[in-house]
Amino acid sequence: MREDSLAARGRGRRIGFVPTMGALHAGHLALLDYARAHCDRLVVSIFVNPLQFDRKDDLERYPRTWESDLAACAGHGVDVVYYPRAEAMYPPGFQTTVSVGPMTQGLCGAFRPGHFDGVTTVVLKLFNAVLPHLAVFGEKDYQQLKVIQRMVRDLDLGVEVVGRPTVREDDGLALSSRNLHLSAPERRRATCLWRGLNRARELAASGEREVARLVAAAQEVIESAEGARVEYLEVVEAETLEPLVHLDRPARMCTAVWLGSTRLIDNLALEPPAEG
Amino acid sequence: MREDSLAARGRGRRIGFVPTMGALHAGHLALLDYARAHCDRLVVSIFVNPLQFDRKDDLERYPRTWESDLAACAGHGVDVVYYPRAEAMYPPGFQTTVSVGPMTQGLCGAFRPGHFDGVTTVVLKLFNAVLPHLAVFGEKDYQQLKVIQRMVRDLDLGVEVVGRPTVREDDGLALSSRNLHLSAPERRRATCLWRGLNRARELAASGEREVARLVAAAQEVIESAEGARVEYLEVVEAETLEPLVHLDRPARMCTAVWLGSTRLIDNLALEPPAEG
Repeated sequence: MREDSLAARGRGRRIGFVPTMGALHAGHLALLDYARAHCDRLVVSIFVNPLQFDRKDDLERYPRTWESDLAACAGHGVDVVYYPRAEAMYPPGFQTTVSVGPMTQGLCGAFRPGHFDGVTTVVLKLFNAVLPHLAVFGEKDYQQLKVIQRMVRDLDLGVEVVGRPTVREDDGLALSSRNLHLSAPERRRATCLWRGLNRARELAASGEREVARLVAAAQEVIESAEGARVEYLEVVEAETLEPLVHLDRPARMCTAVWLGSTRLIDNLALEPPAEG
Repeated sequence: MREDSLAARGRGRRIGFVPTMGALHAGHLALLDYARAHCDRLVVSIFVNPLQFDRKDDLERYPRTWESDLAACAGHGVDVVYYPRAEAMYPPGFQTTVSVGPMTQGLCGAFRPGHFDGVTTVVLKLFNAVLPHLAVFGEKDYQQLKVIQRMVRDLDLGVEVVGRPTVREDDGLALSSRNLHLSAPERRRATCLWRGLNRARELAASGEREVARLVAAAQEVIESAEGARVEYLEVVEAETLEPLVHLDRPARMCTAVWLGSTRLIDNLALEPPAEG
């Protein structure tokens, strides 16, 4: 992979990169299309990274759809599909970890020990293999996006990391490979995340600045769905991910919700109301 | 720095790199000469990295000899001296750490908490700025050399990391910027490290395989010097740095010794005796 990218760079090509764990859906395809439009050579990685799974069952049942992934790549102008084996990524003796600090401690980081270390370590390795000018991530994994942007700045990686808006079903459910795990009734109830986040956004737009009230209103909507269990629901500063008490800065409401044995995440920008 | 290196790479240049904390001595100059002979463009960094100092007094009294460092670089064919400011390396919000695992826990790592995280983090940042093909380190800091080689392999950095033999005074003392801190009597006694290591090497060459006996013999020599206090004295496997009980593999004897308020380190290869 690295030799291919060095050769492309030697020819003056601008390399775009979309790292994935496969099971590609329309959210991934939007990332591919954006990257395709902003680079000369488009690389997609497909690697279900064992380091970033905190639960063995989640790793084992993570969807693998190799044939349709390749077809999707071919249909969206991908030049290179990079699919390293786990044994090649983490050979015997491997012992290096890249950690981002406080930003990884809250939200998903508080419930998935080691998850973000696994993400940052593999993304750095993938960047070092693919040598991209541009890397594109979905905003659905908002904390991941911000953590990777922080790592890139802190380590002087010289990669432009772009976040793209979450792609949603018609009823608002954020596209996710894990949606495949939902039963039909769970799938219907899964709109509660989007509805809850929007309830908070409406309140904020109407002038509510108290984060506690925004959270309570969103939580009420989410938990009105049968069997929905909120793991976390927080409003954080949009870049540092520090928890906010008052909506006085650009902010993000982020949530993780269990529906049965499936964990869903979503997030939405909350704008502070204009000074009145 | 990065733009300069990208331009040099674009012209097909091979970039050699010697990272230093300044206070250049003949040991550094040997690294420069080696790198100069193996690259087209030679970059030296001078950066007293606060992250890798576990003691504030050690950081504060670390020698700074900027003018003579520049003259030495000019006299040894250095093309670029890179000297970032600490505030530019670690701006507000900086929070990313690169850690190598078990290899950093023993030897110096056991006595200098956080030291190797500071080393690996800054070296990765320096590599990302300088984009070297080749980086040259001294074997005097043997654990550092092996840890950096491990990081480079684990993170797929694509840098050739070469270790070069320790340069010594006529009486065997390994050159070190910290030797400047020794009083005249301490300087005379400081040969105890080299004499102790050599005692172990002679014993090994004469057939001794028991690490405990090799260590005891070396320790006796070192502690025969007035005021010398052994911090650690160990025989480890040459690549993994795992402690050895029997000298049945390529090994390194490594030691840290305090002389008054100055801490010195040294190390020496021990070859397992031929099967008899």
